[in-house]
This record gives sequence, structure tokens and C-alpha cells, in this order.
Amino acid sequence: DKKNLLVLAGDGIGAEVMAEVWRLIDWLDRRRGISFAVSEGLVGGVSIDAHGVPITDATMAQALAADAVLLGAVGGPKWETLPFEVRPERGLLRLRKDLELFANLRPAVVFDALVDASPLKAEIIRGLDIMIVRELTGGVYFGQPRGIETLADGSRRGVNTQVYTTEEIRRIARVAFDLARKRQNRVCSAEKANVMESGVLWREEVQWVHDNEYPDIDLSHMYADNCAMQLVRNPGQFDVIVTDNLFGDILSDEAAMLTGSLGMLPSASLGAADVSGRRRALYEPVHGSAPDIAGKGIANPLAVLLSFGMCLRYSFDLKAEADLLDRAVNGVLDGGLRTADIMQQGKARISTGVMGEAIIRE
Amino acid sequence: DKKNLLVLAGDGIGAEVMAEVWRLIDWLDRRRGISFAVSEGLVGGVSIDAHGVPITDATMAQALAADAVLLGAVGGPKWETLPFEVRPERGLLRLRKDLELFANLRPAVVFDALVDASPLKAEIIRGLDIMIVRELTGGVYFGQPRGIETLADGSRRGVNTQVYTTEEIRRIARVAFDLARKRQNRVCSAEKANVMESGVLWREEVQWVHDNEYPDIDLSHMYADNCAMQLVRNPGQFDVIVTDNLFGDILSDEAAMLTGSLGMLPSASLGAADVSGRRRALYEPVHGSAPDIAGKGIANPLAVLLSFGMCLRYSFDLKAEADLLDRAVNGVLDGGLRTADIMQQGKARISTGVMGEAIIRE
Ligand SMILES: CC(C)[C@H](C(=O)O)[C@@H](O)C(=O)O
Ligand SMILES: CC(C)[C@H](C(=O)O)[C@@H](O)C(=O)O
Repeated sequence: DKKNLLVLAGDGIGAEVMAEVWRLIDWLDRRRGISFAVSEGLVGGVSIDAHGVPITDATMAQALAADAVLLGAVGGPKWETLPFEVRPERGLLRLRKDLELFANLRPAVVFDALVDASPLKAEIIRGLDIMIVRELTGGVYFGQPRGIETLADGSRRGVNTQVYTTEEIRRIARVAFDLARKRQNRVCSAEKANVMESGVLWREEVQWVHDNEYPDIDLSHMYADNCAMQLVRNPGQFDVIVTDNLFGDILSDEAAMLTGSLGMLPSASLGAADVSGRRRALYEPVHGSAPDIAGKGIANPLAVLLSFGMCLRYSFDLKAEADLLDRAVNGVLDGGLRTADIMQQGKARISTGVMGEAIIRE
Repeated sequence: DKKNLLVLAGDGIGAEVMAEVWRLIDWLDRRRGISFAVSEGLVGGVSIDAHGVPITDATMAQALAADAVLLGAVGGPKWETLPFEVRPERGLLRLRKDLELFANLRPAVVFDALVDASPLKAEIIRGLDIMIVRELTGGVYFGQPRGIETLADGSRRGVNTQVYTTEEIRRIARVAFDLARKRQNRVCSAEKANVMESGVLWREEVQWVHDNEYPDIDLSHMYADNCAMQLVRNPGQFDVIVTDNLFGDILSDEAAMLTGSLGMLPSASLGAADVSGRRRALYEPVHGSAPDIAGKGIANPLAVLLSFGMCLRYSFDLKAEADLLDRAVNGVLDGGLRTADIMQQGKARISTGVMGEAIIRE
């Protein structure tokens, strides 16, 4: 009963941080008798270089067949000038859309050992534990019509469309409410219902799901601009935040940066459960491909390791192993080991590989 | 040669903070011989209560005739359940649209005396001085089609449209470049060109204006999600940020909160210059109507006073008086006077009115 995992290391630091996951997969096999059938593929710039497209149909077929996909990062300056439709990001967006991964879970957590890494004052950020639930297959990312047209006078007009349906909103709301039940029972929904009708619909449908299915949850609504403020002012007020694709992109990145340790943050993107309870899933670090430090062996592998940890937890129900990994990460940090991005005075600066080894040892 | 000013105090704390502007207008008349012909009108909830609409055609006509409009704040829980089209915010949005106030200038400045009020560490925030230039009459705020439709199966679909044209982008870019020339010569343009075609157009047109008209300015482009991160990580890297209506709404609020003193931040919304060089303009504090503290006489009047200061500077070319006001604000803060929102240990907590008096005295 092998677990099918597709690994897409992608661009930049993707391959070097992913190497530490391979180490962990190997350890799980040898020491715990948990075996993965791992296949590999290309996505992003490396796929463009090899095949001319950011993801091939063959790789998409592999992703559809896998139990879970683990992704490193995509993009880099080399491909920035390519036309919109063949840029590295389109590979990631196609994965999300074709696998129907509508629920993006982005925890923003502050590790005790790293409180000082935050740009925020320690008393504001200590103990932070927010879960941002971002809708990932709808909204302005995929809405039609879209494009750039040239008008009669030679000037141009760029259009994108924000669309949400009842069903799209209700299913993401349910994911948020379910998560809140395992946390602090609080959900804050963010939109611009004061300006956008799609936001009015969002607010009404989230409220409907709450009133009909989750009356036990403490639900509040907040305008997205105010949410961006409140995240800075007092992030500890939030438990679960649910929001659309575009606001989620911005607010989850802002929340991630509050922690001061982007290199530590994993994410999971989940589809709907099928009859057997299995959900399609993709796991990836929140950080990008970091082309400036790629190939130097100094990148922080903890975000992709923790992404693999979310994979163990959500896709393979290996709670004990996921907990063990979380403890190992905390142990290594408490022991004073740091990659360059989270380096602090008095700690030991180590490479990507040494961090990976330390996790295995721990 | 009277200066025509329309004052719209609006809702919540609007009236009480505006009272301090009246004091200043009176002082300018008596002590400087600078007279304003001030008319007053209703906007937002108070207009809904009186006339059933968030702004009347008569008030719009007054606004169109005025040299400048000074607004307090709009909105409050009393009107939150009203239908979308008659909510308080529509009054503000109609003012922006009908006066064609396409350029929203939102400074995010940290006053030396208030460094500690920021949620961010002092070393990150000290001396911060960013100008966010937000496009204000286009994008998803006004794009068609928009609305909520009910489908055959009873479910609903909410739609909004993000639209930008060459001309809309170029004119806001010029405002940003002009401001940068008076500052540090740096502009960062934020969009999601990796996901939205309207963002691709935005990036290309901003670059075009730069290359053809402002090659002396240091221009960079940044994805809006990364910009939300960078504002937290290292806000000092920015001079002028130019962005669209929706991203500007979120990023300027985030930047405002970085300063820790929302009650201090003014904004200006400007139209195009006519042949005589005169631009339509509306000035308003960044803070909202704060219904929770309305009527208590504790709100901070400095944001609306500084908004009036921007009005003196941009609409009436009264640079000396605007500078004097800026100095008075710094002087009062250095003297240790604080309204409740910016209260710090060891300082004197004062009311709205006493703050207004202190500014006059200074
Ligand atoms: C790379 C890009 C397309 C992507 C997005 O905008 O969703 C990224 O910013 C993210 O948040 O995963
Ligand atoms: C009140 C609201 C319509 C407005 C906006 O979204 O533009 C406000 O948030 C602002 O930034 O001035």
C-alpha cells in the first residue's frame, strides 16, 4: 500500500530545499517502515526550458494520479520577460485549477525561538497562531472575460473579472469553519462588501453557512483593508481568516511576514473530498524561488519540510509522524541552529544540508 | 478673492474633529487675513437620514463649484444593513467619481515623538516617510459589468470587473513621478502582472511613461503581495508607491497602520489640472468614522487638521501656512500632549478640543 507522491522541485532554491525532504522520506522508509512511491516532474522555469511550457500535459496527468503533490517554488528573472501565458506561474496556476485545489491553508505561526526575528514588537507577535484560508480556484485569478484589447485610437484596455458563485463561497467557508472547530472556534471573513457586489455575495453566503451549519462558531466580517490594518495592529485577535483568492494572496503574505520567518512557513492546497474521503492536495512553502540565493546551499529547508509535514498530516493521516517533525523543528531551533535567513546573535549559522541533517537527528 | 471650501463633516467623529478645523479657519481669517467662503453639506449616514441618499444632487453641485472639499468620515453600524446602492460609502465614491479625483495621495509618515506608538520595532519604523499614490476613479471600484445575478437553480453569482485603460494608468503614473521628483526620485509600482492582464498593462504603461517622460526617476515594479510583505519587513525601502484602486486601498491602510498613529494621517484626492492650473480636490483623514468613540470628545483632530493643511498646500498654494501647521503639530506632540489614541506613558491625555486649542496656540 504505497503512498503516491509527486515531487515538483521547480526553480531557484526549489531543488536544494527539496533535497532535505528526500532525506526525510528515506528516513521514514528505513526507520518507520512508511514507504512512498515518489515520482518527479518539472514545473515552472525548468519546464519552460525543457519543454517550452510551464507544465506539460504528462506532468499534469501524473499530478492527477498522485495522492499528493509536493512543490518547491517557481519563477525567476530568467523567465520574467516571457509572455503572460507561458510564464512559470502559469504552471502553478494550472495545477491549482486542474486539480481543483480550492482551499489554500496558510498558517502564520511564530515559533517561540524566533520571536525576535519579527519586525513587530515581541509583545505583539509572541505566540501568534493564525490560519488563513484562501479561496484558490476562483475570483479574479480565473474569471472571464480577461485580457488586453487595443482600441481604435491605439490605446489599450486591460480587463479582469472577479466572479464568485454561491457554491464556491460555501465550500471554502465550510473548510474555514471546520478548521476553526479544531482551533479556537473563531472565523473572520474578509472582503470589500462596501465596494464590490461580489463581496456582498461573499458576506451573505459565509453568513448563511454559519447560520445553517456552524452556529457554534464565532463569525465576524471585516473589510479587507481593515483586515490588512488589524494584522499589523493586533494580529493576535485572529484565529481563522477566510477570504478570496486575491485578498488571500495579499493578506496571507502580509501575515507571513509578520512572523519574520518566511523560510519557516508551509502551506497546503486541498480539493474536495471524494466518496472515500480522499482529497487531492498540493503542499508548498510560502516562500518563493529566491533566485538571489539559489545554488548557494544556504536556503532554509524548514518551510518545505513543514509542508511535507502538512502532507503527512492531511493526505496520509500520519499524525504521529507529523507531530514528530513539528517537535524536531522546535528542538533544532531551541538548540540554537539557524539558517542565514533566521540568523540571530549568539546562534550557530548552518547550511541547508546541515539543517536537514539536524532535523533527521532530532 | 475668497477661497471656496465645502465642508462635509459626515458621520461618527466627523463633526467633532471638524470643529477644530473651524477654529483654524477662524484663526487664519483673524490673524492672517486669509478668508474662506465655507459652505457645509451632508454626506454619508447623516445624508441618508435627512434625504434618503448618501449625497444629494444639490450637495454634488456644491462640491463641483467649490475650490476644495474637506471631508470628515462616513459610515457606521446604523447604516450597515442598508442595500449596497444607498450605503454611506456611496456618497464618498460618488464624490470621487463625479469630481474625477483620480489621484489619491496617502502619506505614511512617522512623527518622531510617536515612534513608540508603532507596532513595529523602532529601528524599522523611525523616520518613515512613504507617499502612496492610489488610482481612485477606476479599477474594480467602478468597472462594468458588476452585480449579483440569481441563476436558474436558485444559486447566485457575484461579478465585479477590473478595468484600466492606457490613459488612466499614464495619468496616475505622472502624478507619482512628479511627486517623486520633489522627494527621493524613486517610484515603486505595485500590481499582479503575474496573474492579471490588467496588471500587465499597468506595468507596461507605467514603464512607458517612465521611459518617455521621466527617465530620471528610479522606477521599480513589485507584485502587490510582495509589496504587502516588504511594507512590514522594511518599509524604509520605499519612497513613492503607485498602485491601482483596490491594491491602493489595502496597501495604504497597511502602511498607515505601520505608523501606529492612524489618527494623524491625512489624505488628498486630486483631479486633473484645468487650463488655469486649478485641480479639483477633496481632503480627508485616513481614519474612519470611529462610531465607538463618537460624541465623547476624545477623537484625535490632527488627521483632519493635517488634511486641511494639505488643502492649504495643494489647493490654495498657502505653503507658509501649511508649513506652520506642520510645525505646530510637531510642537504640540513634542510638548507631550496626546489624545487617547496616541497616549503614551508620561504624557498628558487631552480631549479633541484641547488638542485643537493647543494647535492654535502653537
Ligand atoms: C506565484 C503566484 C502566481 C502566486 C499567487 O499569486 O497566487 C503566489 O503569489 C502565491 O501566493 O502562491
Ligand atoms: C469607505 C470606503 C469606500 C473607502 C474605499 O474602499 O476606498 C475607504 O476604505 C478608503 O480607503 O477611503
